[in-house]
Amino acid sequence: MKAEIISIGTELLLGEITDTNAAYLASQLPLLGIDLHFISTVGDNKQRLIETLNHAWQRSDIIITTGGLGPTEDDITREAIAEFFHEPITIDQSLVSQFKELFNSFNMDMPESNIKQASVIPSVCIIANPRGTAPGWWAEKDNHVIIAMPGPPGEMQQMWSNVVAPQLQDKYCHAIIYSKTLKTFSLSEAKVGELTRAYLLAQNPTVGIYAKPDGIHLRITAKAETLSNARELVEKAAVEIHGILGNYIWGSDSETLEGIIANLLTINSMNLAVAEAGTGGILANTITNIAESSKFFKYGTVINRGDLKRDYGINDAIIKQYGVVSEEVACIIASAVRAKCDTSFGVGLIGVIESDDSNNKLGTIAIGIANNTGKRGFKKVYPGTRMQVKQRAAISALYELKNILTEETKCT
Amino acid sequence: MKAEIISIGTELLLGEITDTNAAYLASQLPLLGIDLHFISTVGDNKQRLIETLNHAWQRSDIIITTGGLGPTEDDITREAIAEFFHEPITIDQSLVSQFKELFNSFNMDMPESNIKQASVIPSVCIIANPRGTAPGWWAEKDNHVIIAMPGPPGEMQQMWSNVVAPQLQDKYCHAIIYSKTLKTFSLSEAKVGELTRAYLLAQNPTVGIYAKPDGIHLRITAKAETLSNARELVEKAAVEIHGILGNYIWGSDSETLEGIIANLLTINSMNLAVAEAGTGGILANTITNIAESSKFFKYGTVINRGDLKRDYGINDAIIKQYGVVSEEVACIIASAVRAKCDTSFGVGLIGVIESDDSNNKLGTIAIGIANNTGKRGFKKVYPGTRMQVKQRAAISALYELKNILTEETKCT
Repeated sequence: MKAEIISIGTELLLGEITDTNAAYLASQLPLLGIDLHFISTVGDNKQRLIETLNHAWQRSDIIITTGGLGPTEDDITREAIAEFFHEPITIDQSLVSQFKELFNSFNMDMPESNIKQASVIPSVCIIANPRGTAPGWWAEKDNHVIIAMPGPPGEMQQMWSNVVAPQLQDKYCHAIIYSKTLKTFSLSEAKVGELTRAYLLAQNPTVGIYAKPDGIHLRITAKAETLSNARELVEKAAVEIHGILGNYIWGSDSETLEGIIANLLTINSMNLAVAEAGTGGILANTITNIAESSKFFKYGTVINRGDLKRDYGINDAIIKQYGVVSEEVACIIASAVRAKCDTSFGVGLIGVIESDDSNNKLGTIAIGIANNTGKRGFKKVYPGTRMQVKQRAAISALYELKNILTEETKCT
Repeated sequence: MKAEIISIGTELLLGEITDTNAAYLASQLPLLGIDLHFISTVGDNKQRLIETLNHAWQRSDIIITTGGLGPTEDDITREAIAEFFHEPITIDQSLVSQFKELFNSFNMDMPESNIKQASVIPSVCIIANPRGTAPGWWAEKDNHVIIAMPGPPGEMQQMWSNVVAPQLQDKYCHAIIYSKTLKTFSLSEAKVGELTRAYLLAQNPTVGIYAKPDGIHLRITAKAETLSNARELVEKAAVEIHGILGNYIWGSDSETLEGIIANLLTINSMNLAVAEAGTGGILANTITNIAESSKFFKYGTVINRGDLKRDYGINDAIIKQYGVVSEEVACIIASAVRAKCDTSFGVGLIGVIESDDSNNKLGTIAIGIANNTGKRGFKKVYPGTRMQVKQRAAISALYELKNILTEETKCT
C-alpha cells in the first residue's frame, strides 16, 4: 500500500512553523508496513488543496492530511474533500450536541463558528477527537481512503495512535510488523551509527536511528507472518545491540528518564528534592510532568548564583578552591537540599547558560547527586542555545540519577 | 512569480529528520515578494524526483530543491535534473581541481566519489558552496529556473543568503510582501475569528488565524510595489484590529509574554519571585528561558500542596473558608514569597493537575499576584492533559502579570 501525506496550512508556506506532523507520521507508517513516497504541503486554499488531493489520488492509495479542520473561514479541508468527492456537506447534530456539552463543561457558550466542525459528507466516518473539538474524517471511496486529522500535533498524534493506526492496521496490514525502540544517552548519533552499522544496513529487522532531546533512539522493526516470529527477530537484534551499547541504553519504547526515576523512587518508597542554580526550573518542571509526582517529588528551588553563599554556605574559600561551576559545589547544593527537605535524594544543578565566564565556557553544567551513602558529581559541556543547554542539563541529571538509583536499588 | 520547494531525501520520508530547510526557505521567500504555494518532499529516487519536477514545472516559475547533491549513489538530484532537461552531464575539471585543493588543505586525498559533485549540464551555472564540496546548480530554461542547493541546513542557508537570494531579488522582485502578527490571549480561536471575520475574508491584506500555546495569533500580510506601501496596508489593519480586540492583544511578531515581562521589570528596576504548588516549576522554567533572567528573576520554588500549611501558614481555617485552590490562597502564597525574597512582585500558583478534587475539577488553576500596592487573584479552568494544563497556567499567570505590570508602570 502506498501512502501520501498532505500538510495543510498557510503558516507552513510562510515558514511560521516547521512541519513536525509529517515527520511524525512518516516515522509511524513503516510500523504498519505502509510505504510513503511523497509529502506535500499546501496552504489554506481550497482549489490548490483539491489539485493536490487529485494528484495524490492518481499515485497513492492512502492520503493522510493534517490541518484545516478548525472552526474558522480559513479551515477548508472538509470543504475541499467534499468538493473533490462531489458530495454535499451536512451538519451532524449529535456532534453539535457533543461540542455544546464540552464548552458548557468549561462554563462557556459554544461559538456559532464551531458548528462547521460538525460537517460530514456521505463517504465519511467521523474519527473522535478527545483532545479538541475537531473530529477527524475517514473517507473511503473507489479503493482509496482520505484520512483528515487536526493540525495541532498533540491532537493529531492521539487520534493517530488511538484510532487511525489500529484501523489502518486492520484494513491494510497483511504481515505483522513488530517494533521496539532502544533509547541511549551520552553517545553522539555518529558514534551510535558507527557501533551499530551492520544493523542499520540490515533488511529484516531494519533499524532506524533518530536524534531526540533525550538521546539517540534506535528503532528495530521486523516483519513476519506471526507476531511471535516478528517479536523474536526484534528481540534477537535488541539483545545483540544491548551487548554493543551496554549502559548507554537507558530505556525503551515509551519510557522516559523521569518516568523510570518516578517508578524506582515510588517502588522503593524514596523521594527527591532538587535545587537549580543556572538551569532555571527545567529539572523540577520535567519531573513534575509525571502523574502523581507529589508522591516522590518533595521540593524544588530555583536560585541565582549570587544567593549560593547565603542559602548554601558556598563561601569564597570553596569557590576559590573548586570554582563555582564545579562538581564539588553541585554536590554541596545537592546535600544541602536533601538535608533541608529530609529526602532520600538531593540533586544540585549549577551551570553557565548566559555567556562564558572566566573559568567555564557557555554550556558548562555541573550535577551533584546526594543520598545517604554519599554524593557523586558530574561536569559536562553542552553546545547549543540557552534552552538547549537547559534541556540537556536536565536530561543529563536524570540519566545520572537513574544510573545511581538503579545501582543503589539493584533494579535493572 | 510563483515558487515551489522540493525537499529531497529518504530520511525525510522515514521521519528520521524534520524538514527545517523548507520552513527556512518559506520564511525567506516573502521578503523577495515571491509567492510559495507548494512544498513537496520526495525520496532519493530519480524517477519520482523527475515526476515531481515535472509537476512543479507546470505550475511554478521558480523551483528550489534541497538535498541530493552529495557524493554517494543515493544522491540523484543532478541526474534527475539532467534527465528532466534532456541534457548530458559532463565533469567540470576546474571544479575537480578546487575539490582536490580543499581536501589537500585538510591533509586528505579526495575520494573518487566526490568527482560526481563536479557534474554540470549546459543550462547550469554553478553556485559556489563555501561550507562544503557540493556546489549548487542554477539552471534556467524556458522562463523557468531550477535552483538546487545542498541538504545540510548550514550550507544551504549560507548559499541562499550569499548568492541565491540576491540573484533572485535582481531577477524577479516586483512586489514586496510585508507581514505582522498580533498575539492575543484569553479568547478562543472561534471567538477571535468571529470578531475579526471581515479581515479573515479580505484579499490584501490577508489575515490568517493560528492557535498557539500562548494564545491566538493573527497574521496580517500585505503585498505592494514598495515596502512602505505594504507596511502601511498592514499597519492600518493592525490598528483596526487593535480597536476590536483591545487588551486581549498582548504582543506582536516575535514577542513572548515572558520577554515582555522581562523588559518591563528590567526597565523599571523591578524583580520577581514565584511559588508553584501544583504547576511543578513550569512558570520558573518559562521565565528563565529569557537571557539574563537572573537580573529580574530572584527565586522560584516548587512545593507540594501538603506543605502549604508549614511553609505558607495556610491553616485549616483558611482552607475551610476559601478552599485550597482559590484566589485567596494563591494571593497568600504570592505575598509570602514576595516578602521572603523582598521582591517587587510575587506570584503564587496553585492548581489541580492530578484529578478532580472535592471542590475543583481537573485543570483548575488559581493565580495570585502581589506587589507593594496589593494583591490580585484569578481562577481559571483549563482543559487538556497534565502538561497542557501546566503550560496554560503559566501563560495565564504571565498574561495577568503583564497586564498588572503594564498598568502599574504606565507602559503600553
